Amino acid sequence: MNDTWQTFRKLTQSLTDLATMGSILSWDQETTMPAKGAEKRAGQRATAAAIYHEKLTDPTLTDLIKRLQDMDLESVEMRSVEELCRKQQKALRLPRQLVEDLARNAANAYESWIKACRDSDFNEFAPWLEKMLVLKREEARLLEVSESYYESLLDEYEPGMKEPALEEILGQVRPHLTDLLEKITDSPVHSGVKHFEGVFPIHVQERFGRDVLSAMGFDWEAGRLDQSPHPFCTGLSPQDVRITTRYSEKDFSVALFGIIHEGGHALYEQGLDPAHHGLPVCEAISLGVHESQSRLWENHVGRSPEFWTHWLPRLKEAFPDQLEGISLDDFMFSVNLVEASPVRVTADEVTYGLHIIIRFELEKALLNRELEVRSLPTEWNRRMESYLGIKPKHDAEGVLQDVHWSHGLIGYFPTYLLGNLYAAQLMDQAAKSVPELGSHITNGNLIPLREWLRTNVHRIGKLLSAEEMISKITGKSLNPDYFIHYLETKFGELYEL
Amino acid sequence: MNDTWQTFRKLTQSLTDLATMGSILSWDQETTMPAKGAEKRAGQRATAAAIYHEKLTDPTLTDLIKRLQDMDLESVEMRSVEELCRKQQKALRLPRQLVEDLARNAANAYESWIKACRDSDFNEFAPWLEKMLVLKREEARLLEVSESYYESLLDEYEPGMKEPALEEILGQVRPHLTDLLEKITDSPVHSGVKHFEGVFPIHVQERFGRDVLSAMGFDWEAGRLDQSPHPFCTGLSPQDVRITTRYSEKDFSVALFGIIHEGGHALYEQGLDPAHHGLPVCEAISLGVHESQSRLWENHVGRSPEFWTHWLPRLKEAFPDQLEGISLDDFMFSVNLVEASPVRVTADEVTYGLHIIIRFELEKALLNRELEVRSLPTEWNRRMESYLGIKPKHDAEGVLQDVHWSHGLIGYFPTYLLGNLYAAQLMDQAAKSVPELGSHITNGNLIPLREWLRTNVHRIGKLLSAEEMISKITGKSLNPDYFIHYLETKFGELYEL
Repeated sequence: MNDTWQTFRKLTQSLTDLATMGSILSWDQETTMPAKGAEKRAGQRATAAAIYHEKLTDPTLTDLIKRLQDMDLESVEMRSVEELCRKQQKALRLPRQLVEDLARNAANAYESWIKACRDSDFNEFAPWLEKMLVLKREEARLLEVSESYYESLLDEYEPGMKEPALEEILGQVRPHLTDLLEKITDSPVHSGVKHFEGVFPIHVQERFGRDVLSAMGFDWEAGRLDQSPHPFCTGLSPQDVRITTRYSEKDFSVALFGIIHEGGHALYEQGLDPAHHGLPVCEAISLGVHESQSRLWENHVGRSPEFWTHWLPRLKEAFPDQLEGISLDDFMFSVNLVEASPVRVTADEVTYGLHIIIRFELEKALLNRELEVRSLPTEWNRRMESYLGIKPKHDAEGVLQDVHWSHGLIGYFPTYLLGNLYAAQLMDQAAKSVPELGSHITNGNLIPLREWLRTNVHRIGKLLSAEEMISKITGKSLNPDYFIHYLETKFGELYEL
Repeated sequence: MNDTWQTFRKLTQSLTDLATMGSILSWDQETTMPAKGAEKRAGQRATAAAIYHEKLTDPTLTDLIKRLQDMDLESVEMRSVEELCRKQQKALRLPRQLVEDLARNAANAYESWIKACRDSDFNEFAPWLEKMLVLKREEARLLEVSESYYESLLDEYEPGMKEPALEEILGQVRPHLTDLLEKITDSPVHSGVKHFEGVFPIHVQERFGRDVLSAMGFDWEAGRLDQSPHPFCTGLSPQDVRITTRYSEKDFSVALFGIIHEGGHALYEQGLDPAHHGLPVCEAISLGVHESQSRLWENHVGRSPEFWTHWLPRLKEAFPDQLEGISLDDFMFSVNLVEASPVRVTADEVTYGLHIIIRFELEKALLNRELEVRSLPTEWNRRMESYLGIKPKHDAEGVLQDVHWSHGLIGYFPTYLLGNLYAAQLMDQAAKSVPELGSHITNGNLIPLREWLRTNVHRIGKLLSAEEMISKITGKSLNPDYFIHYLETKFGELYEL
């Protein structure tokens, strides 16, 4: 056993190192690389991916997995073997030609998406999306995860999540969201809102953001904060986790909530068990669970009155003129404004879920040939009006707004909403399990929450599935009631519903 | 032929990409990585190196090389095949065990070197150097480049350079340097030297350095300037070349000459033919030729009165108080001060060569067992006194000052001096070939020089050997007379000898 395991561990360490090389090529490209470097960078990333695939599908590894599966293993070993087997099977099922076709089509689709957005011309993008759907159906068919194409693709991002379960969850959430939105829209409390005005110097924003990250327990010796056009988090190892944000001089909240959001992702990555680094278990459970960490920190903590009781006086010290006279109540309104708008990435906590549900319903219908690509914009706008009560001015702020489908990311959107659901259920439990959690946050002490998350979620890595993790911590399966209750309570109070 | 060549090209492109991944891991470690990332970074770099070695020694590649060698090839193809064959042969000749032993011993030797420097205790380092020499002799023996151990190791850094030729060149240079140093030491002109005083804010230094780099023709869309403890240049591709410098608030010249020096390296990397990227010919000829580019820009351009005729007024605008009243003559003295000192990295143009010659003589004697490790400090100090007329206060500023031997870099030091020789010979030719070169530099126009170097040196890559390149450009083999003549003229005038 020992030799076999050691060989297996060495191979998985190489795989992790290769994945890290891909990550650093990509992090560098977003934050650091000079413009002309892009030409060769694509090839460098392709080489890293190709060698990763080659090593992952190596028959030596298949043989090791088989031998280890016949042995009596501890849980870390067993889960590692299972997870690697799952990854290898997926990789082996996809012929090289399909992988290359998908990559090539994604590159072309992305280019055409850029043009389509610029000209707000869906027809430019339509044939590439059509082609992408053909390839993704083929991928889903070959992956053999499920009879359902959608479930097979979803499994890549949210392992173990079944389509009927997802369908049921989103179906439960939707009417609550539309109902809540309607009530908020009708609420007269609206008019009292004060928006931020003035210029917020970027270096002051950055200093404040760093202070908040420090308070969250972000380890600066094991991480960085940089700038990039689209904020993201990259974990090169638990000891090297990098986040980015983008700054707007007119609105400090863009960068700050970006920092708290990515900071939540970063705490997850920094909290993975470094002793398991290089093993398949030393990874986040799923995209949904990863997103739960960013949403929990951004929304449940970062948009709460407890948090701002401590931080607002400090923010006013940083921006004394710009925030003069603003009260905690005013401030809570400003950072929790609910308003139906056509764009997902700037949506508030209530409407966000509806943006996701629209995408989920449409991408599933497209994949199952229940909706034709040429009818997509009409159907998009119809649902926007039905769920959100608004109509995009044009396709660029409508059906074309997200990059995901051009990259072939179908089945990905729901993980954003699942993140909100996991966050609410976890936070409900944290409030019960962490003594005096509210007062700690009010006093600026965020460490007890981070410690609770670290112990219960971060350290676990992939030793549990998402379902096992949430059941173990909260005693229940994933249940949308927590999220619905959280929204209805929070916004009920705020808008006096 | 076409298919075989295309397969070969694809494989060499992968090798280049893998080497780039190693470079980016290392660049990131020096400039960007958070402290705790170091623990896993070593393993990531080892994985990149191991996969590179595996791909380089792949029998498919051996077979391709054999088939291509039997074909009628154009020069780019032919040189590429030759160069890759050379690299593969070297890689195949070294058993895995030796490579691992060398890496492990280097890691240990480096750690012990750090301690030895701290305590100025050569005995701490001695056993690891001893072990390193045993391994390097074994490496030299297996490489089978030459009967001479030294030549076999030298060939890694300066391909094609023979030990007797190097011996003769250094033998010719030495008496001229000691003689010149003696005359300068005796010159009464010394006393007039003005040193820089005051505080030079780092952001102003950086802006000035960037202006100089821009004037040199550094392409900012294909490169970066950052900070690191030890300045260096990394070429990830001709379109992504990164240099670093270090700043001292008390002395702007540390960073500035660092920038010009690394800028010279960078122009070489940016000037490689991008059409050949991924082929073994798209690389610098040798370390010596690489160093010629940094030295040419740093010393022949950056320490010349022509250069400062244009730049001194600008430097005085940047630092008006700090440089008030300093004349061009004063300034030339300050940046060309010759003074025997124990440390190589801060040595002037005259004494620098003597520091190298001492290292060359001693490392050769150690390798050939003509000198025992335990006698090294005594022998070091003896030569310092004999060539430079000074004695290090202790081993930390003497025999222990350089990291190279701890890394196993034996045969590397001479390339620094060869760089000076190539630089002088190239600059002599440039003065003849580039019309009005002196007035261009006086007017701040450095582009004609960069263009000449680009056409004659940079674009060539490894299509020519060092010997072929220098002969083609100057009509002569590498000849130390140019360097000697340059030094004797320059410092003869400065010190009125």
